[in-house]
Amino acid sequence: MEVKKLFDYSVGDNLEIYVLIKSAEARMAKNGKQFIAFNFADRSGEISAKFWDASAEDIAAFQTGKVVFLRGKRETYQDNPQIKIFNLRLAQDNEPNNPTDYLQTAPETRTEMEAEFKKFILKITEPNWNRIVRHMLNQHHEDFFEFPAAKKNHHAYAGGLAYHTLSILRLAQTIVEQYPEVNASLLYAGAILHDLGKTQELSGALGTTYTLAGNLIGHIVLIDEEIFETCKELQIDPESESVLLLRHVILAHHGLLEYGSPVRPRIMEAEILHQLDNIDASIQMMKTTLEHTEPGEFSERIFGLDNRQFYRPQQ
Amino acid sequence: MEVKKLFDYSVGDNLEIYVLIKSAEARMAKNGKQFIAFNFADRSGEISAKFWDASAEDIAAFQTGKVVFLRGKRETYQDNPQIKIFNLRLAQDNEPNNPTDYLQTAPETRTEMEAEFKKFILKITEPNWNRIVRHMLNQHHEDFFEFPAAKKNHHAYAGGLAYHTLSILRLAQTIVEQYPEVNASLLYAGAILHDLGKTQELSGALGTTYTLAGNLIGHIVLIDEEIFETCKELQIDPESESVLLLRHVILAHHGLLEYGSPVRPRIMEAEILHQLDNIDASIQMMKTTLEHTEPGEFSERIFGLDNRQFYRPQQ
Amino acid sequence: MEVKKLFDYSVGDNLEIYVLIKSAEARMAKNGKQFIAFNFADRSGEISAKFWDASAEDIAAFQTGKVVFLRGKRETYQDNPQIKIFNLRLAQDNEPNNPTDYLQTAPETRTEMEAEFKKFILKITEPNWNRIVRHMLNQHHEDFFEFPAAKKNHHAYAGGLAYHTLSILRLAQTIVEQYPEVNASLLYAGAILHDLGKTQELSGALGTTYTLAGNLIGHIVLIDEEIFETCKELQIDPESESVLLLRHVILAHHGLLEYGSPVRPRIMEAEILHQLDNIDASIQMMKTTLEHTEPGEFSERIFGLDNRQFYRPQQ
Amino acid sequence: MEVKKLFDYSVGDNLEIYVLIKSAEARMAKNGKQFIAFNFADRSGEISAKFWDASAEDIAAFQTGKVVFLRGKRETYQDNPQIKIFNLRLAQDNEPNNPTDYLQTAPETRTEMEAEFKKFILKITEPNWNRIVRHMLNQHHEDFFEFPAAKKNHHAYAGGLAYHTLSILRLAQTIVEQYPEVNASLLYAGAILHDLGKTQELSGALGTTYTLAGNLIGHIVLIDEEIFETCKELQIDPESESVLLLRHVILAHHGLLEYGSPVRPRIMEAEILHQLDNIDASIQMMKTTLEHTEPGEFSERIFGLDNRQFYRPQQ
Amino acid sequence: MEVKKLFDYSVGDNLEIYVLIKSAEARMAKNGKQFIAFNFADRSGEISAKFWDASAEDIAAFQTGKVVFLRGKRETYQDNPQIKIFNLRLAQDNEPNNPTDYLQTAPETRTEMEAEFKKFILKITEPNWNRIVRHMLNQHHEDFFEFPAAKKNHHAYAGGLAYHTLSILRLAQTIVEQYPEVNASLLYAGAILHDLGKTQELSGALGTTYTLAGNLIGHIVLIDEEIFETCKELQIDPESESVLLLRHVILAHHGLLEYGSPVRPRIMEAEILHQLDNIDASIQMMKTTLEHTEPGEFSERIFGLDNRQFYRPQQ
Amino acid sequence: MEVKKLFDYSVGDNLEIYVLIKSAEARMAKNGKQFIAFNFADRSGEISAKFWDASAEDIAAFQTGKVVFLRGKRETYQDNPQIKIFNLRLAQDNEPNNPTDYLQTAPETRTEMEAEFKKFILKITEPNWNRIVRHMLNQHHEDFFEFPAAKKNHHAYAGGLAYHTLSILRLAQTIVEQYPEVNASLLYAGAILHDLGKTQELSGALGTTYTLAGNLIGHIVLIDEEIFETCKELQIDPESESVLLLRHVILAHHGLLEYGSPVRPRIMEAEILHQLDNIDASIQMMKTTLEHTEPGEFSERIFGLDNRQFYRPQQ
Repeated sequence: MEVKKLFDYSVGDNLEIYVLIKSAEARMAKNGKQFIAFNFADRSGEISAKFWDASAEDIAAFQTGKVVFLRGKRETYQDNPQIKIFNLRLAQDNEPNNPTDYLQTAPETRTEMEAEFKKFILKITEPNWNRIVRHMLNQHHEDFFEFPAAKKNHHAYAGGLAYHTLSILRLAQTIVEQYPEVNASLLYAGAILHDLGKTQELSGALGTTYTLAGNLIGHIVLIDEEIFETCKELQIDPESESVLLLRHVILAHHGLLEYGSPVRPRIMEAEILHQLDNIDASIQMMKTTLEHTEPGEFSERIFGLDNRQFYRPQQ
Repeated sequence: MEVKKLFDYSVGDNLEIYVLIKSAEARMAKNGKQFIAFNFADRSGEISAKFWDASAEDIAAFQTGKVVFLRGKRETYQDNPQIKIFNLRLAQDNEPNNPTDYLQTAPETRTEMEAEFKKFILKITEPNWNRIVRHMLNQHHEDFFEFPAAKKNHHAYAGGLAYHTLSILRLAQTIVEQYPEVNASLLYAGAILHDLGKTQELSGALGTTYTLAGNLIGHIVLIDEEIFETCKELQIDPESESVLLLRHVILAHHGLLEYGSPVRPRIMEAEILHQLDNIDASIQMMKTTLEHTEPGEFSERIFGLDNRQFYRPQQ
Repeated sequence: MEVKKLFDYSVGDNLEIYVLIKSAEARMAKNGKQFIAFNFADRSGEISAKFWDASAEDIAAFQTGKVVFLRGKRETYQDNPQIKIFNLRLAQDNEPNNPTDYLQTAPETRTEMEAEFKKFILKITEPNWNRIVRHMLNQHHEDFFEFPAAKKNHHAYAGGLAYHTLSILRLAQTIVEQYPEVNASLLYAGAILHDLGKTQELSGALGTTYTLAGNLIGHIVLIDEEIFETCKELQIDPESESVLLLRHVILAHHGLLEYGSPVRPRIMEAEILHQLDNIDASIQMMKTTLEHTEPGEFSERIFGLDNRQFYRPQQ
Repeated sequence: MEVKKLFDYSVGDNLEIYVLIKSAEARMAKNGKQFIAFNFADRSGEISAKFWDASAEDIAAFQTGKVVFLRGKRETYQDNPQIKIFNLRLAQDNEPNNPTDYLQTAPETRTEMEAEFKKFILKITEPNWNRIVRHMLNQHHEDFFEFPAAKKNHHAYAGGLAYHTLSILRLAQTIVEQYPEVNASLLYAGAILHDLGKTQELSGALGTTYTLAGNLIGHIVLIDEEIFETCKELQIDPESESVLLLRHVILAHHGLLEYGSPVRPRIMEAEILHQLDNIDASIQMMKTTLEHTEPGEFSERIFGLDNRQFYRPQQ
Repeated sequence: MEVKKLFDYSVGDNLEIYVLIKSAEARMAKNGKQFIAFNFADRSGEISAKFWDASAEDIAAFQTGKVVFLRGKRETYQDNPQIKIFNLRLAQDNEPNNPTDYLQTAPETRTEMEAEFKKFILKITEPNWNRIVRHMLNQHHEDFFEFPAAKKNHHAYAGGLAYHTLSILRLAQTIVEQYPEVNASLLYAGAILHDLGKTQELSGALGTTYTLAGNLIGHIVLIDEEIFETCKELQIDPESESVLLLRHVILAHHGLLEYGSPVRPRIMEAEILHQLDNIDASIQMMKTTLEHTEPGEFSERIFGLDNRQFYRPQQ
Repeated sequence: MEVKKLFDYSVGDNLEIYVLIKSAEARMAKNGKQFIAFNFADRSGEISAKFWDASAEDIAAFQTGKVVFLRGKRETYQDNPQIKIFNLRLAQDNEPNNPTDYLQTAPETRTEMEAEFKKFILKITEPNWNRIVRHMLNQHHEDFFEFPAAKKNHHAYAGGLAYHTLSILRLAQTIVEQYPEVNASLLYAGAILHDLGKTQELSGALGTTYTLAGNLIGHIVLIDEEIFETCKELQIDPESESVLLLRHVILAHHGLLEYGSPVRPRIMEAEILHQLDNIDASIQMMKTTLEHTEPGEFSERIFGLDNRQFYRPQQ
């Protein structure tokens, strides 16, 4: 028998379910008592809940990364899904208490994705770019296939970084077929490395936060430095035109200075990478939000899309 | 023997060549005498030239749409290519004087494009959208395959409208394969119709200007009205959800109110169409500009891309 | 004896009063219990109130459109007027329970307004515009005199649409007298039709919401289509200059693309209509807000006027 | 026989005519020779012209404020009307050489306007405001009826300041009739004084420039100081609420801080005055520009209206 | 023995302490009962607290300006320090109940600051500026050394206005030494007077609010009028260049029209004063906020610095 | 006898003078002939001139970096100073033809500046920062004291980079004395390195252009990479907090993302450095521009200060 997941329950249903504590934050209520603001998760998605009148023991026990057995009711608070908690306890050793079983993951397996990345790397025919990409992917191989692509907003799940990158590569391939003037090697190399700095900017897949280097330097500059280092190690001139082009594509991929790129795109492939990055992130945000919206309704507001609400058609 | 075209000549070369007058405008020079500001064109591109001390007869003879025999020299003026005119006369009847032989055209033939459009239309499985698209494409069939996609900037050549549309459809197909949640029928139908209003907004492929309806109403509202009319004719309810969705996708395809859409995208397919439209137009503008830029140099400024200059790599 | 109305009571007063439920929304409180957020109304204005610890029966009974007998106290919450509810029950059949007796209405009677509209229509001397206006007003006659001009903000009361329109016409008349170059027929015709699309965009006078067509198409395009249809019906060429001018005046009346007009005003009458619309809406918002502000105090913030607070002088 | 004026001639016509030099600026041409850039004027409008190869004597003779006899041809340069000069000489004593006969003036006589101002002042029933307005108008009576309302853009003719003010008062009267909540005395008093500081900011009606006080202080603060002074003189407390209100209405009349008001409107009458000022200036700019535009054409760009071009209908 | 102050206690500590009520505001809680929102202060800083279930007597007793004896616990609410109140009573006559002993003050004594101001005034060698500055400082001497520089944000403590001014003067002195082209007299005179209008705009050092003149006129125009008055009194021509320069420096010191200056800086000293004002206010805001931030943490958001959070390094 | 310099001549004066060709650009005139657009320079400043009807020999001879003997006349063209050329020839060997004698230089000698830098470096007490700064200044010692601080705008003269840096350090010292909370070591180290990347971004002091790395990477990222490299070389952990702080101060010194910083200032010293950089550049631009403005006149527009014109007082 299939175990029901969080979003298999409708609003108003009572539920008894094992869930992961994706995040837990103790705060003081307006009445002066402590409560815990939870995000519970399983592979169907995330949902928030408040645990009122929390004791010091509760706060110590129910921490980020724990699996708990939850009895409660699915409700809605200000258009967002929410759980009303009746009862909560830690999952025991004889129960399904492995956190990674509850993390959302990319819709394709790591093995499939690894194979497809190999094919794309073969298409990078410029030797310097090919060596740099191989070397850097090797060094970050585990993190690249484990990390989310962002703290929240889009592709915020285990493997999201690799999946987002792969999705951009597929769009890039259509572009390259349509426009032979585009330098495929450069576009692919740039796409693969563009967000790799997130492995330094973010702390990991669970309870994701920004590192100090992430806050003070940012993933764009962090990865540029690493390309610079890699060139030295591989004895490639980091000031040669081919390396300057690759670095530029990555430095410029946020498109606008306002979005944190220190330079705007000044070669064609940089502009294209920026736009493909944007479109893939946008689709992912809309898709995730609409999955939890009823047909015929408007969704909650999407922060990363100018706080717009999107309509889910009835048909 | 291959006849040399405009951009086969390098800066400093003398040239003797038949070209089309793409536009001609008589103006007064600072010294009080008349001159003609020309845009000459053949299939290699467009180039400007000034004809000094023009007589009334010159102005009457050398008008938009005429083919002329030009003797002159290719030069550069403020980073833009330019012709210095030595001598100019109208092409005679026994000379290659058919204007359409000099118009730039889409890089694919009309027959190829028509065949591919048919395949895409077959993929529109929602019956109302399918009927509306077929009916409207039938009515504008000639114009759709003849018009440019814009007065200047991107795809400003004969067949540009169809080619731009097809290019978006191909990107849309990759999106649809990657994200099954996207409604392929709606995205394809919206893409095919999104710029069809340009056939009312613009005057045609040669000496393109805005019509009064183009200036006062704009192509976005013009095509929406035509969908409305088509529904009445085909006895489809224009207020049904499926038609509202199609109309919304088209009304919203400029993405931002500031760019002339009366509503922002509020369904997923509308946002996607907007972004695909944007990326295809951007690539076309960069590609066209870089074709006339020397390797190792920065291009002229591209108005439609925030006046940025793009670098053409040496390699 | 005059029955006291909502705003006849001062802050701190206890009140026993019949009021209309203008809107009612059930929500969950921070303590996990349900409450109802009310807007009560009578002809003196609107005021909010919270009904704590609401049972399922309460939520079922106290719905938008019902008249209730309210015992409570007038208070202030974060600078906004508010009612503290002691007791609430539905009004009975032998009590004043007719909802329309509690709706705010325009300060002039429908009969007076209808008469004045007739006079303005007589001044539209261009025959096409005159016929279009007459035909469309006939079709929407009831709605035009019943609808509010907006969901909230300005003229959000029964008859507000007609009253707002009439107020613009009176200002337009002064303009026309001062500047004979202005085309009075065009300005009057545009003014009368400019917001008529709201009858399709909004659901009605009570519990006003946006329709799906309102959300996805918007009142500006909806009314333009209807003019287009009307032309076909009356056998007027919708592409003639006179009709293009009328349609432009209406399409452009929001003034800026950012405010949802697909074109900016490009004829004098369009710019004037935009500014008169703006000034009348502004005055109405200030007037309504200042009515509930004490002399010598600053008002609550007005959303539609950049969140400014306005001072009500003591004298 | 009626003497033909500047704008009675069509493009291409030769003309022999007396005109006023509204402004004259000696510059160096690209060929290294001097020329004079003229604005010629008579009561039909202003037109520019270039006088090539000007000698030192020419520059000394043809100065701002002189009447000249001009032989030339009316042309068009980059969509703007222009004169090609054949011959130029100063008007003699037995010729019509009085500069003021060539200045454009308000469309109503000074006597008419003075009478109407008196009526409006009678409607200012608050005694402080009435005394302040009378006193300040008395002091600046001559300038108020002679000055333009701006250096260029709108009402840039002799008497323009008074005419613009009167036009606002007439619109204000319609507002006051429609909305009895508006304080008529305050709105009229503010309207009359709002631009009076221009008499200190600008140098006069002919060859208008900014004074140093205009450049460093600005007309808004200059007139506020004068109200302050007037209060002292009339022994009215400048910190009383009634005076603070009047000063606020004037300080805030540019509406936005970006437009030079040190405070945004925070009372109703200030917001209304701002909007009426705006609408009257806009109409005047459009009207003046369209007078020199052919039917069926778009005008030159209007700087004060976001550089928009306006269409002059054929009908 | 040193008495512990508010910020000597760590989060989680219980405290028994005398504090000043810097502000007290009675509000209604979501449960319908009254509470008081306090800001308590002593010389170590300010901290907020909520007093739940307040009776009418509590509200009457615990008002702004009173010293109270507080028993409670230091906590944190949404990253801001906060006190949980166990018990509260007014300080008695035999207890330390003098409000001014609890007000934060400038880090330098009034005597020291007065002496340093005298030295700077001696360096104002232009006689008009010197006389104006002396006269105006004399008139506002008490207020100038007592007032805060702002209602909140920066230098919001007794003596803050003088201290902020002095700090700017010291930076100005370095500028003057580095760039002899800068007019030291003008820069010093402008700096001393630039915020003096705050003594009319704000109500005082305790429970600071805006006056009506502050709201409707603003401190920039208020002080300009006073310079104008001072000139009349001292028989200095207010329209002379030297006075226009001084007035301009002060009118323009907010730098941008958007920040409330009616003119942008148009002389060098005005631009410099604007930038020095900005830098001193910024440092003060960062310093005050970081004092209450733990090493290794990011601070609360600073409103006056675009809501940025600042990091306090560990070292 | 003192030799007269360029700006010792008044408008209208004839001049015979040796000058340096700071830049020379051959262009085509509107009449189809070539001309050279020159910037001539000596230590009094720069001035533009046009050389009409230039032959191929002229273009070959008169190139950037040559000293020429010029006979001409000082004039004004559109408010900018300009030379009319009568005659031009290259300076001979027995004439003063050393280009560096004509370059503007910093107002202090290199020896003086070097000594003062040493004192500031002694005040950097944090050992890592001290070592990094010493090492990097050693490596770029020559360039640091030779380069301008910018291509144009501010400090665009030999030694400008060092002088601008020193000027910031002096302001920083006043800040540090006033606010002991500021980390002096960090502020000084950041100030010294903040623009050092310009030695890679720009080509040098004469005929300054951007390098490809400057265009595609930018000086902010270029210097950050070099700090990273330096750390590796000196065996300092580039991810330690102290190095992250230093790198952040430099990465953030443009203050806003829009100005090219990849992160906004998030520590106090970063915000201060940004503002000091800004104020010193602003003063330098105003000072340079006003030197060439007549007393009582407004200057030409300053691009780097929002195109404002500044007034030079008469006194």
